[in-house]
Amino acid sequence: MSIPATLYWSGEADGHLRLIDQTLLPNALVEMECHDVPTVFEAIRSLRVRGAPAIGIAAAYGLCLAAQQATDASSLRTAVAAAAEHLATSRPTAVNLFWALERMRAWLDEQPADLTVDDLRSALLTEAQTIHDEDRRMCRAIGRRGAPLLAHVQGVLTHCNAGGLATSEYGTALAVIYTAHESGQSLHVYVDETRPLLQGARLTAWELQQHGIHATLICDSMAAHVMQAGRVQAVVVGADRIAANGDVANKIGTYGVALAAAAHGIPFYVAAPSSTFDLALASGQDIPIEQRAAEEITEPFGTRIAPTKINVYNPAFDVTPAEYIAAIICEQGVIQPVTAASIRALLTH
Amino acid sequence: MSIPATLYWSGEADGHLRLIDQTLLPNALVEMECHDVPTVFEAIRSLRVRGAPAIGIAAAYGLCLAAQQATDASSLRTAVAAAAEHLATSRPTAVNLFWALERMRAWLDEQPADLTVDDLRSALLTEAQTIHDEDRRMCRAIGRRGAPLLAHVQGVLTHCNAGGLATSEYGTALAVIYTAHESGQSLHVYVDETRPLLQGARLTAWELQQHGIHATLICDSMAAHVMQAGRVQAVVVGADRIAANGDVANKIGTYGVALAAAAHGIPFYVAAPSSTFDLALASGQDIPIEQRAAEEITEPFGTRIAPTKINVYNPAFDVTPAEYIAAIICEQGVIQPVTAASIRALLTH
Repeated sequence: MSIPATLYWSGEADGHLRLIDQTLLPNALVEMECHDVPTVFEAIRSLRVRGAPAIGIAAAYGLCLAAQQATDASSLRTAVAAAAEHLATSRPTAVNLFWALERMRAWLDEQPADLTVDDLRSALLTEAQTIHDEDRRMCRAIGRRGAPLLAHVQGVLTHCNAGGLATSEYGTALAVIYTAHESGQSLHVYVDETRPLLQGARLTAWELQQHGIHATLICDSMAAHVMQAGRVQAVVVGADRIAANGDVANKIGTYGVALAAAAHGIPFYVAAPSSTFDLALASGQDIPIEQRAAEEITEPFGTRIAPTKINVYNPAFDVTPAEYIAAIICEQGVIQPVTAASIRALLTH
Repeated sequence: MSIPATLYWSGEADGHLRLIDQTLLPNALVEMECHDVPTVFEAIRSLRVRGAPAIGIAAAYGLCLAAQQATDASSLRTAVAAAAEHLATSRPTAVNLFWALERMRAWLDEQPADLTVDDLRSALLTEAQTIHDEDRRMCRAIGRRGAPLLAHVQGVLTHCNAGGLATSEYGTALAVIYTAHESGQSLHVYVDETRPLLQGARLTAWELQQHGIHATLICDSMAAHVMQAGRVQAVVVGADRIAANGDVANKIGTYGVALAAAAHGIPFYVAAPSSTFDLALASGQDIPIEQRAAEEITEPFGTRIAPTKINVYNPAFDVTPAEYIAAIICEQGVIQPVTAASIRALLTH
């Protein structure tokens, strides 16, 4: 696999976070350095790093950066708490962000009161790297769990990017495809371009090329037509937050793909780690949906494509009800059928 | 109404065709002149003039241009036949193109053998202007027929542009909205941007603004989410060709909108003149679907947004089966339910 790391920590506790600036792909592969929390915040908000699991890892490393300026243990704890609160406001929908920040805070709280500021910095970095390592293993496990679902599939459709660039590496939805491909299966992937920010065209198409997997780029509006033509036998997407009943928030457009899949009897799979579940929310109606700037739609690449003063609605996510989801592929196993009971059973077993 | 004419003939039989270059909207409103058939051909193929009815009118005037070089009646008939054959290859899906060309040829064939070349030029222009006039009346009639269907609707969604710019003026799908609006109804229109060429963002949003109608621009992938949120109670779109059984070819993405509407119990209406029906085709499976260049998707406005060498699939149209269509709004009446029998009854009564 020739894909570079989505993000990684360089050095020891006094090091820094490096990540691929995904807004520049596929035209340029540029790594950016994050030496402070504001840079991490901006990178998350501007989607330089995106994808629910990757956002969580970036935020965890962000807290390591917050700890660097502190001169004693007490000020470190204060600085990290403040940074966690701030980073939690960078994006509202992906729950992995809050999950990672909360895990780091809890870890810090657990550290003995007599640890030095250097000890605490090391402890924070260790936990962030643990989250990172777990994500790597999680992606591989999701790939192994999900690949059998594609056993008799030739064409598979995906929306947005739930690949290596959305995680530490390898991905969630794309992990399923990569694992099937590595086991010798011949797959053809239809890639929704994913307006407005084109993560499918820019990131997924690029990743699949790096892996040598046959892929065809389409506009989002072509997915139903591709299904009608019999070109795909399965859909696999990622998730940004999954409610207790199995309703899935994912990139805007996912719901329309799910409806089209249902109309054609095509199974619609969601691949996501356990950290994507938010069992505190009864249903997807409770998931906050991020609203983004109108210019993402009206001025792609600086070119005005709509009249001035036109109203724009730009939700970044939508919610697919559980009834449309054939299975949720998790690192611990495959949830099928998708019900509150089956979810709770897998996540708490 | 402050919208300029989509296209018109300037002068007498030795005049020329003028049309709005729609590829430049909404940033610039520029009229181009067509003095010969190749210019008309290029304008149609490059979507400077587009929309099934408008293409038909442009092609009819194109034959008037073909007649201008002829020095005698015989060479005029030959030139017009050759031009008709050529213009018929400009775009394959909208049947109004072939309908208008065939009507012009039949009209020419009917002209007495002793007419002079000048008589024939005048006769051709008269017929083209008749087609143009009929289109104006057709649009108004479709508006009147369709408006009652929106009587209890607050939000309506449309895809692509089936407005004044797709016809002589006033439109088909948008005529229904304009007529309801003029009768004092308050409507809010959700406008699919319509990738790849963004006719919704560039043309429909602009037209609705000119008419002072509340409109909100969304990406195509947001239509299902907008329906789920209860924001629209009806969908109205145009058509490029309708088969005998009521299957409708229209701009790519229409089918996905129809599936989403069906899932939410929202009526999905098609507005189109009788010239859009192709009763020679039993079903939509027989409608040829135009495939367009990959660069329309991968290089919007000259900016590369996908990796080089990626496969691209770019069908310009899709087919919505009749079962998803609540009614077809025609100038002669509303076809409801949409069946081969109800279509034949209306078109042949």
